[in-house]
Amino acid sequence: MIGSSNILNLSTLCKFLKKHDDYIILTHTSPDGDTLGSAYALALGLISIGKKAFVVCNDEIPEKYNYFVKEANLKSIDYKTVVAVDVADAKLLGSLYEKYSDKIELTIDHHVSNTHYAKNLYLDAAASATAECIYEILKKLHIKITPLMATALYTGISTDTGCFKYSNVTPKTHRIAAELHSFGIDAAEINRKMFDTKSKQRVELEKMVLETAEFLFDDRCLLLTVTSEMQSRSGCEPSDLDGVASISRSVEGVLIGVSIKQSEKDTYKISLRTYEPFNASEICKTLGGGGHKAAAGCTLIGSLSEVKKQIVDAVGKAIEENDARAIVTE
Amino acid sequence: MIGSSNILNLSTLCKFLKKHDDYIILTHTSPDGDTLGSAYALALGLISIGKKAFVVCNDEIPEKYNYFVKEANLKSIDYKTVVAVDVADAKLLGSLYEKYSDKIELTIDHHVSNTHYAKNLYLDAAASATAECIYEILKKLHIKITPLMATALYTGISTDTGCFKYSNVTPKTHRIAAELHSFGIDAAEINRKMFDTKSKQRVELEKMVLETAEFLFDDRCLLLTVTSEMQSRSGCEPSDLDGVASISRSVEGVLIGVSIKQSEKDTYKISLRTYEPFNASEICKTLGGGGHKAAAGCTLIGSLSEVKKQIVDAVGKAIEENDARAIVTE
Repeated sequence: MIGSSNILNLSTLCKFLKKHDDYIILTHTSPDGDTLGSAYALALGLISIGKKAFVVCNDEIPEKYNYFVKEANLKSIDYKTVVAVDVADAKLLGSLYEKYSDKIELTIDHHVSNTHYAKNLYLDAAASATAECIYEILKKLHIKITPLMATALYTGISTDTGCFKYSNVTPKTHRIAAELHSFGIDAAEINRKMFDTKSKQRVELEKMVLETAEFLFDDRCLLLTVTSEMQSRSGCEPSDLDGVASISRSVEGVLIGVSIKQSEKDTYKISLRTYEPFNASEICKTLGGGGHKAAAGCTLIGSLSEVKKQIVDAVGKAIEENDARAIVTE
Repeated sequence: MIGSSNILNLSTLCKFLKKHDDYIILTHTSPDGDTLGSAYALALGLISIGKKAFVVCNDEIPEKYNYFVKEANLKSIDYKTVVAVDVADAKLLGSLYEKYSDKIELTIDHHVSNTHYAKNLYLDAAASATAECIYEILKKLHIKITPLMATALYTGISTDTGCFKYSNVTPKTHRIAAELHSFGIDAAEINRKMFDTKSKQRVELEKMVLETAEFLFDDRCLLLTVTSEMQSRSGCEPSDLDGVASISRSVEGVLIGVSIKQSEKDTYKISLRTYEPFNASEICKTLGGGGHKAAAGCTLIGSLSEVKKQIVDAVGKAIEENDARAIVTE
């Protein structure tokens, strides 16, 4: 459902922030580097100009973000103004939804899919991360950016772009990164924590997952499976499973990567990752799911072998149709 | 052995390049993104201002660089001026060493360890990649940077910084990346080719390597082994082995990552990757090797179990010494 927010630009947004006070800043559930980095940088920035602000998240914040979350040492206050950052849909507030959904004065976001649920919306869909927006807001407010604010902002940009790897990176993204570098951050250490630190349990799980690798359709499809038994045998936390789906499309020649993750006894979450000419969203739609062109998902009910057959059939159909089209155009 | 090059700055270097012609540009052996990206961008730049230039490498250039190497479509010429790029030591020219070592007019490099083997040297040790230097040279020469030159330069910077992840990245690195982005490159596609594309054989090998994982000294050390048998069973090319060593220190809590790679029957190449307070170079020196503080290596002779004992003993000694120091300072 799309609401009808009042749309702010950078100037009217800054007027809003100067006028109000006592901010509670909400992040989305399963918080990532961008929602947290944006929220903490904004809170610290507002505090630095004499406002009160703190951050609230529905879920426990993963320890790996301690280097700015704990460092910020924000104390809760009696709030007056509710702001959500990097939250595309009020439902992504999780259990905070009931408490705050009708009180959200402002959302700052970069998701083109934002549902306009807040009274006011600042949306920059060209930004690689909401943290890019927050950086521009802090600059516009003439806030002196501290190393801690820069650390939080860099984390947001770096994590939402896969460390400047994805197609959402623009010249502006790199220019902002250059400026953040000069505010005294330890970018290499941030990136090590965000990208190059796996738990021992995750390494164990990856080994098991690679053992399930099935190459199908002349190696154009790679199927990986993660069962509940593997999760518990490896000792993995749910957050250790992040990114397993992307392994499936990192293999040369693979155009359709499929990961099947067991969530309950007869319930499996399917993640599809595709390259041209295949469309993950189209394939998942045939199974009641959806998503983006290159990344989509669906949930299937049944035994592992039944579920596997369903998704393999759907992938096979897409490949068959593609091959038929290829013959016609030749 | 350190030679005595004439040191050029950006101005005198550009004068040199304008004055000479008929360039042969040499890369180092086991060519990587930076030596190739730098060489091709420089060659294309020189050609665009009416000079003749081509690139020579001792080894076959891996196919994954085709998107600029093949695209450049350079033809060999009768050369007059020999230039080496990103080559820290003449020995790194491989078999080209004999043919060219006394004819190298100029080296352009960013390695602080450059042995000053060329007649003239342009060295910027603060640059994250030699491609950063080449970018500045092309700008200084007022060369119009084409998408192909920008693609080669971006490849050099991106690969030498682990996609902007490492501590060699500076604000300037990001500023140059921002400018290269605006010359019409497909950065996401370059990064996918460079970072997210593993061969099926490499996936097979990683599975085998993870099975050898040994956690030692209260999980502070992780030991990985790659035997010749594993290389041939997985069908891996030597280039598929790149980066295996870094897996060993990507695990949370691991401070010393060791990989043991068999090169011949009783010969093993040891790679060490360490974090503070450990010093990879110091540990490898005790076994006749060397390198940097965070990354070093040595070659050991003997059976796998003998070699493993040697390196584990050396690591154990370093940990013991560190623990003793920690008690003293407490």
